[in-house]
Amino acid sequence: MSREERWLLHWSPRSPYVRKVMIAAHETGLEARIDRVRTVVGGTTPHLELMDDNPLGKLPTLILADGTAIYDSHVILEYFDSQHDGPRLIPTKGHDRILALRRHALGNGMLDILLQWLGERGRPAERQSPAHIALWKSKIDASVTALEGDAEGLDATPFGIGHIAIGTALGYLDFRFPEVTWRDDNERLVAWFDTFCARPSVKAHAPVDDS
Amino acid sequence: MSREERWLLHWSPRSPYVRKVMIAAHETGLEARIDRVRTVVGGTTPHLELMDDNPLGKLPTLILADGTAIYDSHVILEYFDSQHDGPRLIPTKGHDRILALRRHALGNGMLDILLQWLGERGRPAERQSPAHIALWKSKIDASVTALEGDAEGLDATPFGIGHIAIGTALGYLDFRFPEVTWRDDNERLVAWFDTFCARPSVKAHAPVDDS
Repeated sequence: MSREERWLLHWSPRSPYVRKVMIAAHETGLEARIDRVRTVVGGTTPHLELMDDNPLGKLPTLILADGTAIYDSHVILEYFDSQHDGPRLIPTKGHDRILALRRHALGNGMLDILLQWLGERGRPAERQSPAHIALWKSKIDASVTALEGDAEGLDATPFGIGHIAIGTALGYLDFRFPEVTWRDDNERLVAWFDTFCARPSVKAHAPVDDS
Repeated sequence: MSREERWLLHWSPRSPYVRKVMIAAHETGLEARIDRVRTVVGGTTPHLELMDDNPLGKLPTLILADGTAIYDSHVILEYFDSQHDGPRLIPTKGHDRILALRRHALGNGMLDILLQWLGERGRPAERQSPAHIALWKSKIDASVTALEGDAEGLDATPFGIGHIAIGTALGYLDFRFPEVTWRDDNERLVAWFDTFCARPSVKAHAPVDDS
């Protein structure tokens, strides 16, 4: 595959899954190959053009020059790692690989919960379920507590897919749920998140609510 | 790591993500190493003991002999592939790997939608959102249409993570949403699904609603 091949990315400045991909593209030196197409999903209207490429109708979806569609964000990061010669986003094998993927699953799972929560909050009040919101809140709290216990491990391992997912999830908490005061009693995690936020790749792709 | 080490799996006969793991364990010859622990999640009550191992409180979660927790189902399948010498569930590189992971993302994304839909259906009628249900139905329909176009590709590639996710998603449609008549006009996909359902690993782990 030619190094010059360009890719099209169904993109939004609001999507945390897109943010993961853009941070990864920046870290791996692949960002200049990506042409972003602003794609608006969310709410309850299907995006039929996007669904031609990805029937799940979700962001991000990456389109290669030959028309091949790649999704979800995890798979796009796998693809990026096959396209650059720098440090891997995903360790290639062993315990390091499984640990990085589990960290990714935790950060991404937090995002899945936060997106459900956001959708719930967008419903008419009489169709919201307080019991679901309480459950989701308890899972986010438990995840933050687990991450506080893993903060030194995050510091001690090379930056990669797990850090990207976890940092993006905490950033999305700040972006959409400022009322969740996750920093209280989690000073090691706060210190790690500060190092995450200081990375050029992270600063260059801050979430923007332009709706 | 010793070949004799045993693993504990937070398990349910109703969870399609657990089913993916059990089919994979069967296919790779690892099933005998797994001790299943029936774990009931769902509804809106947090499962605090499970959340000690996986703060997201989700099935499946695999616990190694040293206490290491592995999740989600995708990561567990990655781990399985590091623990057996047979044909890989996930091709190790190249286009084949990305295609298999994209198929997995599609099948798993269908499951994510179906689980949201199931949760919605379980709410009091006045808190349900018909607009969300219509959106999810449209995405499932689009996914089935895309899979009909990929049925010959599924037939032509070695059985693995993509087949497991897609077959499990279609099986879950039959299990929980028999009113979705996905077989109409999709005869190639039906033929592929019949071969999936005939596999011993799939037959041995049929979904059971024992609630």
